[in-house]
Amino acid sequence: MPDRPLPTPEEVQSYLRDRRNWGRWGPDDQVGAVNLITPAKRAAAAHLVKTGRSVSLSRDFPKEPGPNNAFPAQHWIRTAPRGRGGFAADYYGIFYHGVASTHLDALCHTWDEHGMWNGRDPRREITFDGATFGSVEHWSTGLVTRGVLLDVPRHRGEPHVTQEWPVHGWELEDILAARRITLEPGDAICVYSGREAWQAAHPDTPYGRPFGGGPSVRPGLHVSCLPFLRDHDVAVLAWDMLDHLPIGYDIAWAVHGAIFAYGVALLDNALLEPLARACVEEGRDEFMLIIAPLKVPGGTGSPANPLALF
Amino acid sequence: MPDRPLPTPEEVQSYLRDRRNWGRWGPDDQVGAVNLITPAKRAAAAHLVKTGRSVSLSRDFPKEPGPNNAFPAQHWIRTAPRGRGGFAADYYGIFYHGVASTHLDALCHTWDEHGMWNGRDPRREITFDGATFGSVEHWSTGLVTRGVLLDVPRHRGEPHVTQEWPVHGWELEDILAARRITLEPGDAICVYSGREAWQAAHPDTPYGRPFGGGPSVRPGLHVSCLPFLRDHDVAVLAWDMLDHLPIGYDIAWAVHGAIFAYGVALLDNALLEPLARACVEEGRDEFMLIIAPLKVPGGTGSPANPLALF
Amino acid sequence: MPDRPLPTPEEVQSYLRDRRNWGRWGPDDQVGAVNLITPAKRAAAAHLVKTGRSVSLSRDFPKEPGPNNAFPAQHWIRTAPRGRGGFAADYYGIFYHGVASTHLDALCHTWDEHGMWNGRDPRREITFDGATFGSVEHWSTGLVTRGVLLDVPRHRGEPHVTQEWPVHGWELEDILAARRITLEPGDAICVYSGREAWQAAHPDTPYGRPFGGGPSVRPGLHVSCLPFLRDHDVAVLAWDMLDHLPIGYDIAWAVHGAIFAYGVALLDNALLEPLARACVEEGRDEFMLIIAPLKVPGGTGSPANPLALF
Amino acid sequence: MPDRPLPTPEEVQSYLRDRRNWGRWGPDDQVGAVNLITPAKRAAAAHLVKTGRSVSLSRDFPKEPGPNNAFPAQHWIRTAPRGRGGFAADYYGIFYHGVASTHLDALCHTWDEHGMWNGRDPRREITFDGATFGSVEHWSTGLVTRGVLLDVPRHRGEPHVTQEWPVHGWELEDILAARRITLEPGDAICVYSGREAWQAAHPDTPYGRPFGGGPSVRPGLHVSCLPFLRDHDVAVLAWDMLDHLPIGYDIAWAVHGAIFAYGVALLDNALLEPLARACVEEGRDEFMLIIAPLKVPGGTGSPANPLALF
Repeated sequence: MPDRPLPTPEEVQSYLRDRRNWGRWGPDDQVGAVNLITPAKRAAAAHLVKTGRSVSLSRDFPKEPGPNNAFPAQHWIRTAPRGRGGFAADYYGIFYHGVASTHLDALCHTWDEHGMWNGRDPRREITFDGATFGSVEHWSTGLVTRGVLLDVPRHRGEPHVTQEWPVHGWELEDILAARRITLEPGDAICVYSGREAWQAAHPDTPYGRPFGGGPSVRPGLHVSCLPFLRDHDVAVLAWDMLDHLPIGYDIAWAVHGAIFAYGVALLDNALLEPLARACVEEGRDEFMLIIAPLKVPGGTGSPANPLALF
Repeated sequence: MPDRPLPTPEEVQSYLRDRRNWGRWGPDDQVGAVNLITPAKRAAAAHLVKTGRSVSLSRDFPKEPGPNNAFPAQHWIRTAPRGRGGFAADYYGIFYHGVASTHLDALCHTWDEHGMWNGRDPRREITFDGATFGSVEHWSTGLVTRGVLLDVPRHRGEPHVTQEWPVHGWELEDILAARRITLEPGDAICVYSGREAWQAAHPDTPYGRPFGGGPSVRPGLHVSCLPFLRDHDVAVLAWDMLDHLPIGYDIAWAVHGAIFAYGVALLDNALLEPLARACVEEGRDEFMLIIAPLKVPGGTGSPANPLALF
Repeated sequence: MPDRPLPTPEEVQSYLRDRRNWGRWGPDDQVGAVNLITPAKRAAAAHLVKTGRSVSLSRDFPKEPGPNNAFPAQHWIRTAPRGRGGFAADYYGIFYHGVASTHLDALCHTWDEHGMWNGRDPRREITFDGATFGSVEHWSTGLVTRGVLLDVPRHRGEPHVTQEWPVHGWELEDILAARRITLEPGDAICVYSGREAWQAAHPDTPYGRPFGGGPSVRPGLHVSCLPFLRDHDVAVLAWDMLDHLPIGYDIAWAVHGAIFAYGVALLDNALLEPLARACVEEGRDEFMLIIAPLKVPGGTGSPANPLALF
Repeated sequence: MPDRPLPTPEEVQSYLRDRRNWGRWGPDDQVGAVNLITPAKRAAAAHLVKTGRSVSLSRDFPKEPGPNNAFPAQHWIRTAPRGRGGFAADYYGIFYHGVASTHLDALCHTWDEHGMWNGRDPRREITFDGATFGSVEHWSTGLVTRGVLLDVPRHRGEPHVTQEWPVHGWELEDILAARRITLEPGDAICVYSGREAWQAAHPDTPYGRPFGGGPSVRPGLHVSCLPFLRDHDVAVLAWDMLDHLPIGYDIAWAVHGAIFAYGVALLDNALLEPLARACVEEGRDEFMLIIAPLKVPGGTGSPANPLALF
């Protein structure tokens, strides 16, 4: 349970405003903290690979309706003859934000009353034809960097994070210390909270709002994780549980504020249980992480199949 | 111009039947030549990375209608308020096979009169709910291997491959020899044919059939490339131009036959011009290639943003 | 409550087999009981119009996710400039079968172990490109006929049909007698069961299976309504509640069996409360009913906005 | 050929501004000229029905790509077992504006620099969630009125309207006179221009812009038809050919300006050849016309299957 005082409302406001990265890479920058992933950083990440084991961090493409999937992805197929043979082809359609699909959030995805990333105005930048600033194609050469697992259940000795005990920034620091990990600018952190175990233990409680609207409550990462991301110059946050709700502060977004305030790439709904297992088996907490978003001009993010290479 | 005799119809039949890999990795194998990409192969590929330069091999998500894009991809966006802030979210939909989208073909994508990969019957395996054999999720840990560029225009000293002069298997051998490249089992080859330059030189000639149906003619790789793929145990073929048409033989599929006959992963409509340029600038023909298909159960392939790391 | 014995399993089997209309309009007929709507029948229906009041029998296009709407319809919009003006255009997408959308079922929509309408084999007739028999375009000149309201709540003096007390065929006969209505071949009946009132009284019980699968229970029309449809040569059944579930007999479909057995057009999820109100206000039980399905070659039905004209 | 002088630019401006119907049915009216279709008008239309012949005015749901269909409609199907039987269900998706699909334009569909219908501002009224003014659900009780065919090819003794000889308002007057037709407020006119015959005679010239962009030229109705619509208080214009292009005047919209200026419902791409034939066979120019748009809240129109009853 949290043994430290919660941040004050003023402190939380300060996370989002005083510490934001606006202008840090120029006033027109659309790459954000991903700028910290330099070619040298990518090369160093590649050199982490030893056994060549590959782990997918992606959930299945969410075709089935369910309490966590109000807008099921579409998969339609057809076959056609070709000479004496033939072929099968299919259509994939997905409204990928939400809690069902493993996906990347682009810098244009969220904003608060002060604006989008780098201070842009969403009323101007989000058009019927797509986003004109901070869209996902600015990351089309991929997010390739060192990935570091922060395994909260393992640290706690519990199967999963609970509603009562959100993940705090100080707990992430504790995990770093306990695991003797030093984060470096441009790293991707994979914060594993045991979402599958939590869902199995709460079969009747969806992780998201099943039909939109209404109050929302769910376990996850507390807004106190924001300074952690900023202090360590994290470039990418991959997580299975998302923001703890209710937020508890009068702000539009908690950890999702890292998008517009710091320029951090969020990989929502990552499947981290197999990664956590692989880390134990490989005896390592770090790996080469690769996220290759679809190159969608004006897109607010992308479904993705992130890979961890050991 | 081709200075060697074309293969006889019997030889072409032999490529597809006598040399096929059915059963090579077991009768129920759904991974195909991608089995040749072992963990050690992946690790070796990672160790090729030196400068950390990353090149995307993906064309833009093909939203605009056009002569090469009879079924434009869908990109729809909306915004919603959230407290004093808000968010933007979008829908992506794509019927990705064809000539517009950079995508991976799964082993279930094509077949001839003898069946799908490993001899399966498409009438049984392709269902309304997706493919039950050889579908793309069997590659969900990604295709991560050594990539090798075979730059045909550079070899020829011409801007692009032409309709009159298709790429033959022996020409690929010539390129290997000229560039002193030795292929190894499990490699991915990126055969660059200069599709952008060709299209720019033929602005009124679409590369595919603009509205379906009718005869089709286009420059590309000749069926004589099949034994090249088989001899070298190529795991992945990334190409910008596809099969030369007309095929010239009474077969359903030419190079696309490598899918069902050899279990090779095809990455259609790769954007290879930037890769070719990077290879010249980096002074290298090899790199780490990463293709991470969406994890779609039953899918016949996936749109993808492949990355080459130098 | 039902005061008459339920039909035996043998009787129910007999409804579907002994009384089926296969061959009645020829072995290749794809129009079914809609053949009973002759031009003269349409003209007579038009002459029923007196005040010209028009009532829509359509629910809203179901865009919002919800317990009754596992696959929300898609509505995406964009604007574009045109000279000094512009325009707005939108995309509609709908997987319309289910309990959310007012839609027509074509003759190819359902089958049992004996086959589709007229004895056709669904494995042959339902292809990846659409249905090749009994598809909706065979009704493209519309269903225009006399509509007759059968208002079950009004008859019962209850706000809605209940799970305990399904609508039986004999109750529909009682309503005809009480209201002094004589049905004629080719009529459309609109069986109002008070679905809105039922849903309001059971806010936490969805009418359909919210996420697919599992057992299903819902109030509606009992399989004993089948002989009613057949005896009166009903051409169209418009209903707000659908088949009572569980069926209670070992058959694939209850009232939905009227599609393949009798060739009846079903208009599922009609919005009948406004129609019921209009009938009271107009002092009539009959009206001109118009259903104009989209002309989709190979389609299994169509979303529709049916109109009742008084 | 046009034997009368073309309207001056000032006259055309006057059609759109001086004669517009803004405020005629109140400042907040969202029904437009469809207000002229009173219940009595509907009843009178029904009483026109004599033989009961029904004619669909809909083209096929445009699934196939083609020069006139840059965004093909989607039709995807699946089957599922149910007990010993089963069912087939399908998805329909359509971006219906354009020249391929028979569809209705709602009052929010077009605007010029003076605004949308009733002077509303499209920047305010067209939102990511749909239109908030003049959307199609305001016509959900259907457009049911007297339909009158104006058969231009028959009048001209030519198979189709040509690029050189657009349909002018005075020609429509001539047709009324020649056929001794008197239009009444609230009528729907069906202006048949012989689009099928034109397309057959010009197989390589698409009627619309096949891949968007660029200049556009096509035969159709001249802007001089605007005062005809206004003078006769036409409520609905159904047409197979659309606005003659180029417009020839510096305005955003020609006949499509009737939407925002007069509040007229346009039924674009109606299939009128069968209707023209039926009129000849029935010896009549008038009929009951029924258009039942899907009830899509916020929609800019609707695909439709309009019916003409004789």
